[in-house]
Amino acid sequence: MPRIAEARQPAEPTSAEQRDRHQRILRAASKLGAEHGLERMQMNDVAKEAGVAIATLYRYFPSKTDLFVGVLHSQIQHLSTAAPAGGAPETSRAAAVAEVLIAAGRRMLERPQLATAMLQANNMAQLQGGREYAEANSAFHRVLLDALRVDEADDEDLRMVRIVEQTWYGVLVSVLNGVISVDEADADVRLASRLLLGPRYDDEAEHDA
Amino acid sequence: MPRIAEARQPAEPTSAEQRDRHQRILRAASKLGAEHGLERMQMNDVAKEAGVAIATLYRYFPSKTDLFVGVLHSQIQHLSTAAPAGGAPETSRAAAVAEVLIAAGRRMLERPQLATAMLQANNMAQLQGGREYAEANSAFHRVLLDALRVDEADDEDLRMVRIVEQTWYGVLVSVLNGVISVDEADADVRLASRLLLGPRYDDEAEHDA
Repeated sequence: MPRIAEARQPAEPTSAEQRDRHQRILRAASKLGAEHGLERMQMNDVAKEAGVAIATLYRYFPSKTDLFVGVLHSQIQHLSTAAPAGGAPETSRAAAVAEVLIAAGRRMLERPQLATAMLQANNMAQLQGGREYAEANSAFHRVLLDALRVDEADDEDLRMVRIVEQTWYGVLVSVLNGVISVDEADADVRLASRLLLGPRYDDEAEHDA
Repeated sequence: MPRIAEARQPAEPTSAEQRDRHQRILRAASKLGAEHGLERMQMNDVAKEAGVAIATLYRYFPSKTDLFVGVLHSQIQHLSTAAPAGGAPETSRAAAVAEVLIAAGRRMLERPQLATAMLQANNMAQLQGGREYAEANSAFHRVLLDALRVDEADDEDLRMVRIVEQTWYGVLVSVLNGVISVDEADADVRLASRLLLGPRYDDEAEHDA
């Protein structure tokens, strides 16, 4: 499979001080990304805003792609602590997944320039198959599997969350480029979740009941 | 909605000579894109390979994004003349759409660097909401609606083909970054098409029969 560019391996923060710097960098990238978008945001300005040396910034995030995938990753981690696992008990599993995706989408769409930057970076990272992307992705899949009330996911479960995630991602792009409204996006996510997940996770559960 | 960069309006080829130059440019971009990918391909080399002045190239395609969306557009147009409308009569409509998507995907995956370049460009163009993108997109929707045997599409039909297209696009990205094999991708496209389109286009048709 092709690699668009050979990426340097980013460093991992280990000490408390390093984690603090890492967090400051992500906050600075969120702020400046929301104001300027991916193309016009400067790595130098991120370092300045975060109060770190430019070399430190590049050690953690070798490129803007890595940086915005990192921001997306941290938003997803926040999501996994904030999301009520499985939703209300009376909710169908497909609906619980739809609500997680809609909440995540609405949060992203509050800052459209940042959302565009994160989706651009995520797309680039997906096509490059990078490590940061794989991590963010498996954290996101865990959130969706929790909403589906699946504890031990098999290949078919992972396949379904992958397909739903890809559909959600496409719906977000349609909002960002003005093809559909946020309300239409919510409706699309609910419909796609119900059609894709209902037969496996809800209709069978009804049969069992 | 944010615009990442203000795009210049590309020129349209009108005379036979202009259309010939336009075609030569697309063929050159396909060849060099397949060899080098989007990042490393040079606009100068495309102009040289196509035998046109660099100014001519930029007049038709102001950026590499425009150029690879143009290549994608021309592949889709080829698809719409090549695809058997509606598939075999005994095939379900969802299956007919899946086969069109699988054929298009396999054709793209024959040249993975070019496919990556086209998907990168398409993603960028989607997020910028450009005119070239909208055209390529509506041509693609027409091919899918033909496979669904829908002559006059209403909003719900357009919504369904948009969702299926987004899912297919995500599946292609998963193949290109090595997460799934081509065979798994084919199976995912068949499953997603059946789940998303079956209830509206096939199950109801059965009821009518």
